[in-house]
Amino acid sequence: MSLRAVEAFGGPREARQAIREGRWTGPTAGLCPGYAQANLVVLPRQFACDFLLFCQRNPNPCPLLEVTDAGSWEPRRLAPGADLRTDVPRYRIYRDGRLEGEPTDVLDLWRDDLVAFLFGCSFTFERALLEAGVPVRHLEEGKNVPMYVTNRACDPAGIFRGPLVVTMRPIPVELVPRAVQVTARFPGAHGAPVHVGDPAALGIRRLERPDFGDAVTVRDGEMPVFWACGVTAQAVALESKASLMLTHAPGHMFITDRKDADLSYD
Amino acid sequence: MSLRAVEAFGGPREARQAIREGRWTGPTAGLCPGYAQANLVVLPRQFACDFLLFCQRNPNPCPLLEVTDAGSWEPRRLAPGADLRTDVPRYRIYRDGRLEGEPTDVLDLWRDDLVAFLFGCSFTFERALLEAGVPVRHLEEGKNVPMYVTNRACDPAGIFRGPLVVTMRPIPVELVPRAVQVTARFPGAHGAPVHVGDPAALGIRRLERPDFGDAVTVRDGEMPVFWACGVTAQAVALESKASLMLTHAPGHMFITDRKDADLSYD
Repeated sequence: MSLRAVEAFGGPREARQAIREGRWTGPTAGLCPGYAQANLVVLPRQFACDFLLFCQRNPNPCPLLEVTDAGSWEPRRLAPGADLRTDVPRYRIYRDGRLEGEPTDVLDLWRDDLVAFLFGCSFTFERALLEAGVPVRHLEEGKNVPMYVTNRACDPAGIFRGPLVVTMRPIPVELVPRAVQVTARFPGAHGAPVHVGDPAALGIRRLERPDFGDAVTVRDGEMPVFWACGVTAQAVALESKASLMLTHAPGHMFITDRKDADLSYD
Repeated sequence: MSLRAVEAFGGPREARQAIREGRWTGPTAGLCPGYAQANLVVLPRQFACDFLLFCQRNPNPCPLLEVTDAGSWEPRRLAPGADLRTDVPRYRIYRDGRLEGEPTDVLDLWRDDLVAFLFGCSFTFERALLEAGVPVRHLEEGKNVPMYVTNRACDPAGIFRGPLVVTMRPIPVELVPRAVQVTARFPGAHGAPVHVGDPAALGIRRLERPDFGDAVTVRDGEMPVFWACGVTAQAVALESKASLMLTHAPGHMFITDRKDADLSYD
């Protein structure tokens, strides 16, 4: 992301227009500051009911912001007038659980039976952490957040089951309560940490070997703090081996009209 | 409810046992203080998916605490070992949208395709109001809370649509902010008010003529404050004219093992 891009887009509508027209195909981190970005999972209707139930039972990793009617590409609650077939900078296409491509639109793949699920994203609470003076290491180091598959099972629903995936941020011990407090305000963006301290309690053996993303430096006087991660929902959905599943490409989120503050309980 | 009954039940498990054995068939207000009580709506599986989506889209009137797997009568998250066929003091049976009876169990009506929806209940936040020194008029007057059908439409899902139903509590003007603050902590029990002040803004013409429940006194220096009401979900479900629908009878709730505090974001 370049600073120029951040300046170029006035608001979410302008940003989505640029994305729709192919003028922006990069990651969305830093775009439209103050506006909530969302994870996207699209599944055929036959899987939607159980997946919705899975999300209801696992709100921490799967903080649902909106579920569209089957066939509708408009997220009319989060962004009236937007088009989920074109307004994400880069998609991933899975068929029968296998990655098939990473196009910049899915116009030709859309079907009348597709249901879109949009989830809150950790960008929202990372901004709140920074504003509260809590450092966010992977941003400092210009890396992806480290993600780990844990030994905790999600509460299953129908065919959907799998382990909880978490992100980790090293937090100076004296700021741990503040980090909990700040993120707890955002249940619509994964909320409070699921665990503070010893990674072994989550079955994580080596912090320097994340399952996804990049390892980050943990300094003396810092404690690893773990939050539920939206990748949980994608990983679980992938296991369904649905004939077709569409998602955003990592870091290439859907930008909503909703302010970060709207996702908080303040 | 008698004080003796309150004293008789040690905890939710004991209370449910007494209800299951027919030793308690009355309203549950005041039973097991500190434990969350829940509204119940049971629908055949064919309606469950759209109803779940309706609840996702309308979390304020429909704060879902648990959805069971089809056929299962055990709410294994809210109360492991409980039986939703027997552990509510009094049920309502609807067939094709018509009230057919109010039995004390539904053992002979249970089917493999039934899905139970359990919702947070205003008892939780009324206790919090009282503890914060905010009066609750209908409790003072020994009445049912007044409920009103508003001119606000819920966000529809599939066949499920209908107006928002609200409860009203008159609050001394100087305590209105406190009342908002206290109830906002409980999104799992309808959360913050949906409206403060002029009833006409919700299309309510006469406060002294509630659509359900009883009228209560509004004193000088008090403001009517309106919260989303769980009757919304029941009214909307009823409109589906499902072949079979089971609910709790008004005031005869399901007592969970979950503490009120577990429904808060503190």
